[in-house]
Amino acid sequence: MKKIFFVFFLFFYNNILHAENGYDLWLRYLPVENQLLLSEYRSHISALIFPGNTAISGSAREELVSGITAMLKKKPVPAESVLSNGTLIAGTASRIEKIYKVSADDLKAAGEEGFIIRSVLINNRKCIVITANSDKGVLYGSFYFLRLLQTRQAINSLKVVTAPQLQLRMLNHWDNLNRTVERGYAGFSNWNWHMLPTYMDKRYRDYARANASVGINSTVLTNVNANATILTPEYLRKVAALADLFRTYGIRVFLTARFSAPVEMGGLPTADPLDPAVQQWWKNKADEIYKLIPDFGGFLVKANSEGQPGPQNYNRTHADGANMLADAVAPHKGIVIWRAFVYSNEVPEDRHKQAYNEFVPLDGKFRQNVLIQVKNGAIDFMPREPFHPLFGAMPKTQMMMEFQLTQEYLGQGTSLVFLAPLFRETLESDTWRNGKGSTVEKVIDGSLQTQTFNGMAGVTNIGNDINWCGHPFAQANWYALGRLTWDMKVIPEQIADEWLKMTFSVEEKFLAATKKIMLESRDVILQYSMPMGLHHLITYGSHYGPAPWVDKGARPDWTNVYYHKADSAGIGFNRTASGSNAIGQYAPEVQQSWSNPETCDEKYLLWFHHISWTHKMKSGRTLWEELCYQYYTGAERMKNVQNEWAKLKIYVDKDRFEQVTMLLQVQYEEAIWWRNSCVLYFQTFSKMAIPAGYEKPDKTLEYYKSLKFPFAPG
Amino acid sequence: MKKIFFVFFLFFYNNILHAENGYDLWLRYLPVENQLLLSEYRSHISALIFPGNTAISGSAREELVSGITAMLKKKPVPAESVLSNGTLIAGTASRIEKIYKVSADDLKAAGEEGFIIRSVLINNRKCIVITANSDKGVLYGSFYFLRLLQTRQAINSLKVVTAPQLQLRMLNHWDNLNRTVERGYAGFSNWNWHMLPTYMDKRYRDYARANASVGINSTVLTNVNANATILTPEYLRKVAALADLFRTYGIRVFLTARFSAPVEMGGLPTADPLDPAVQQWWKNKADEIYKLIPDFGGFLVKANSEGQPGPQNYNRTHADGANMLADAVAPHKGIVIWRAFVYSNEVPEDRHKQAYNEFVPLDGKFRQNVLIQVKNGAIDFMPREPFHPLFGAMPKTQMMMEFQLTQEYLGQGTSLVFLAPLFRETLESDTWRNGKGSTVEKVIDGSLQTQTFNGMAGVTNIGNDINWCGHPFAQANWYALGRLTWDMKVIPEQIADEWLKMTFSVEEKFLAATKKIMLESRDVILQYSMPMGLHHLITYGSHYGPAPWVDKGARPDWTNVYYHKADSAGIGFNRTASGSNAIGQYAPEVQQSWSNPETCDEKYLLWFHHISWTHKMKSGRTLWEELCYQYYTGAERMKNVQNEWAKLKIYVDKDRFEQVTMLLQVQYEEAIWWRNSCVLYFQTFSKMAIPAGYEKPDKTLEYYKSLKFPFAPG
Repeated sequence: MKKIFFVFFLFFYNNILHAENGYDLWLRYLPVENQLLLSEYRSHISALIFPGNTAISGSAREELVSGITAMLKKKPVPAESVLSNGTLIAGTASRIEKIYKVSADDLKAAGEEGFIIRSVLINNRKCIVITANSDKGVLYGSFYFLRLLQTRQAINSLKVVTAPQLQLRMLNHWDNLNRTVERGYAGFSNWNWHMLPTYMDKRYRDYARANASVGINSTVLTNVNANATILTPEYLRKVAALADLFRTYGIRVFLTARFSAPVEMGGLPTADPLDPAVQQWWKNKADEIYKLIPDFGGFLVKANSEGQPGPQNYNRTHADGANMLADAVAPHKGIVIWRAFVYSNEVPEDRHKQAYNEFVPLDGKFRQNVLIQVKNGAIDFMPREPFHPLFGAMPKTQMMMEFQLTQEYLGQGTSLVFLAPLFRETLESDTWRNGKGSTVEKVIDGSLQTQTFNGMAGVTNIGNDINWCGHPFAQANWYALGRLTWDMKVIPEQIADEWLKMTFSVEEKFLAATKKIMLESRDVILQYSMPMGLHHLITYGSHYGPAPWVDKGARPDWTNVYYHKADSAGIGFNRTASGSNAIGQYAPEVQQSWSNPETCDEKYLLWFHHISWTHKMKSGRTLWEELCYQYYTGAERMKNVQNEWAKLKIYVDKDRFEQVTMLLQVQYEEAIWWRNSCVLYFQTFSKMAIPAGYEKPDKTLEYYKSLKFPFAPG
Repeated sequence: MKKIFFVFFLFFYNNILHAENGYDLWLRYLPVENQLLLSEYRSHISALIFPGNTAISGSAREELVSGITAMLKKKPVPAESVLSNGTLIAGTASRIEKIYKVSADDLKAAGEEGFIIRSVLINNRKCIVITANSDKGVLYGSFYFLRLLQTRQAINSLKVVTAPQLQLRMLNHWDNLNRTVERGYAGFSNWNWHMLPTYMDKRYRDYARANASVGINSTVLTNVNANATILTPEYLRKVAALADLFRTYGIRVFLTARFSAPVEMGGLPTADPLDPAVQQWWKNKADEIYKLIPDFGGFLVKANSEGQPGPQNYNRTHADGANMLADAVAPHKGIVIWRAFVYSNEVPEDRHKQAYNEFVPLDGKFRQNVLIQVKNGAIDFMPREPFHPLFGAMPKTQMMMEFQLTQEYLGQGTSLVFLAPLFRETLESDTWRNGKGSTVEKVIDGSLQTQTFNGMAGVTNIGNDINWCGHPFAQANWYALGRLTWDMKVIPEQIADEWLKMTFSVEEKFLAATKKIMLESRDVILQYSMPMGLHHLITYGSHYGPAPWVDKGARPDWTNVYYHKADSAGIGFNRTASGSNAIGQYAPEVQQSWSNPETCDEKYLLWFHHISWTHKMKSGRTLWEELCYQYYTGAERMKNVQNEWAKLKIYVDKDRFEQVTMLLQVQYEEAIWWRNSCVLYFQTFSKMAIPAGYEKPDKTLEYYKSLKFPFAPG
């Protein structure tokens, strides 16, 4: 009987949820079904005291009231003083001081943006206090508290004191002004520039809410491949409309600066950063911007990279360029974020080494309001990269992290890949620059080298698809980035658990199965696409799908043979001292651990070494056998993911279940495509048979080479 | 007390609807609130007999059951025989003949696609029968029946027998394969070609449902500015996946054919339609398509127009080109739709005349499976055009109508403009080709000239915005097109009434106010943008906003001075015998009514005549005064629309209310912009003052001329 009821319940549950379209992200605030927990929650939150009339406190109060009301199916009674048990008190310490005196230690620990949530007794009444030094802290605390309810945590004995580990918790949008999104796989850009500022899409507020809920406080609205038009008065008014709204959720707006803007729109003959007229132009532009947007964050700049203009066009350094912009925004407390992703067409050097070569000599030459934004690895957001050698190598330079949420090299819009393990892997990496334990995390948060500013950015995966990110599971990467910017030590399992509970279901069986899928997902795609340190094997231009055979491109490092270097002897990029010696850019201890192919972690083997096809791996297999093993195992695991997901039908609303089911089928087909393409192609070098037991590819290498994707998105 | 309750009800109603995002279009199936009506409905629909296991009957049954269940909050009991009053019987006549014998007259009247809905007595039980000759007819009947409930009609005495007036009830998508939409103002294309065929977006089914609900049975998936890639085997498999789904809602798929495809993808040296190899290539391509899509509709072709390749590249005629393609699809019962929108760069003739000059000599030369698709007017979807002179001028040629739903020249994505009055105005126009009463409608439906095929197409306004069409009221134009393809005599008020009830609210006060807004909306935009026959005053390229001053373009008829011909003497395009004599392409009676500026309907005055600034209008005002009157009155009326909408807050869910409010503000600002730009610009010719009583523009003509919109959508 109980089981029948349960099945009926699930059927009903499934049905009432049939209209889920993913738009609400992880802020669904579904009613608490467990009646015991519900009455427990209600007893703790029957009344609400929430003083404050700032815009930010309004955002927090509205979220708290609507979230609690939805989940508890009961609106907390507005109150001004504690009259009963179960009063929730939210507000800055100064606003609530007549009701509750917050401890100075707590406030010190919370800092400017953190918050405190405590179960307390006031006049012998059991209360919960959400407080902070700032309204922004209270906003974050409110979202945190809602998350406790959403994830069905106990709230009878709360002792939370938390502050963000990083200051700039940032999204980078690669959104063009015509609403296309570079490397975007979720539709058009959400920024409807044409209709701004008068028409404010509802999405703008919901975007801000989602960001605030995970602590994201900065957003760069425009593509790093920049367009100067964004700096025209008309467009700045549009930007200001967004900034006005985002400010009410604690978010500051940044823009990308087209380095040649003084020429393109200012009519100057040069954009030379040492030219006084150019400097004045940028100062004036900054003044104009800050008049409209007093808390404007500053500029993000991609210069002298992939065709973008920059200071080197005038024989100046990156420091010259960055400092000029930094001086323009400094009077307004603005900052300049300068990307380290530079490589030159003319330099025949291993791309891996170019950023380091370019930037290390500039250490100490950047203004105090300049941050260098470094990608997690030296190539370009590969599914796996060793940490970027710049981390820890510029002790006198402020450095922030650039991760990529949009899955340019990780299956794009079709693949379920949870990126938190990738992010954590980089953050945990030990640079050894200050001895053992000099992790990338410590470089980033400034504990290894003092920084005035620190931060982490994620290149977003957001578009105007109904569910924002295209793949229903891609939302998890937006969520993960936010959580890690607040606390780089949160483990991926925790992030997945929270996100799944809020986004899909709190059912234990569902959680166990989907967490496993998410946590293994990046390993799976690595195995079937670029195992053992192989990288950059994607289609030219669109980067969609496998094309290890690409040997022609606008530049050598835009081909794929450049990266895998397969030949009759073996495969892999020798980056040791006998090769490009990119490895020489790391600390000696790191060099040592990677230099010897016999001891190098096999996950980086072909990244740093050219290895013989017959090389014995730790598994006992030859390299060729291991390569086949990895490709076949990866594809096989994708089949298993499909089977596991199929079992979860009763836990998921119809639309999202079917959507994920179809996407997993696409991903499985892509896994086979990757496996077959790579095995057949590398076989032309190894001249070895695919080991027994593996089914032979049913199509030829020529077939795979013939595939064309002229309209792949992004 | 009653009033308080009412206000409370509206507040509640408003609140429960707060999550409306427009995705459900006019298929919301909200519960019936009127308890009397609800019990009446329930008594008539307590049981359902719906035999049939075809895919289409499955679609109809699913819609009927879910729609009824939602509106009546009660699921009809499935039955196999009539046991009680209130049984709804749906199915083809042959499927239900053991239960109910449908009259032969009814079936004859319903024809292949029509349907019958009747209240009947069966074994003394009151029943309702939805029946037809085909499953498709039953599908349409089911949607019709649901509409009766949605619009809260009485269903106690139903006697409906209806058949569509047109065979091809069609949408034309100007969607590119990269998902941009030409002249699209509602986001990206919904066709996610990249993820098809494995990933089927939920939108595909809902798109099909919406079309079927208004009788649309054909869709051209691709832009008339065509890309041959759609004809590759890989893309045809994607098309087939859509066709397989759409077929279950009675919709056939068409594609645009790139005339040069045999060269571009076939490797032939020519695309000459008389070349046997070219003919064979198209025959093979057609065979290939029909193998994948047995009910493929055929091709839509834009040839030798605006840079598209065509038969004239090989000194062949449009008939040669169309017939070649027609022969290729004829064995499969396919058709070719050939667009008459042609004009040449090299021909100095008034664009108004070019299609007529080109096509009339070809009358009788087209195959029986060719339809010529003619825009409503000869220029290009202006807010108002006299009917196209081709209508009625080619008695031996099958002609279909092309309307534009996407508001390229009617305010694009920002403006509330209901187009049914525009469509009706064209359809009612009398061509006089067969004496009085030879309306365009009669040309189109073939009653004036026998046609094997007939049809009407709308260039869609659909994109991937959550609400499909961008502006919440733009959905009404999709709806209107569908309704008019079924019955060209449905009056705009009826269409607006149905659509509003289903899309927004059945409250009488709301309906009265919004119907007025909708029905006047096209007049309003005409007044403030292109009154009295002025046309083509839009920005170069984007067509966004006013730019009557454009005097340079890639060709003379891509400028605006070409169309308004303002000078110190007056304004307007002399198309009489003393001018371009475009008027000479109409029947003598029509020529007579328009030729004399004293008697010509003032709405066409400047379309056909160059008129002196001091010309006395019927109003007693001079032309210049009248021009100012129109511009100022139009803008003033937009302000009134804003005021009227503001009063409707209690009837509309929060999100859509605010959305429309903001859009009306944008539109009002645009009205002022149009008014000021045009009055200031034309004043440079008239040299006359803006009449007293009108506020002077607060910006200069130079200001308006300086505005740039490099990223206007579409």
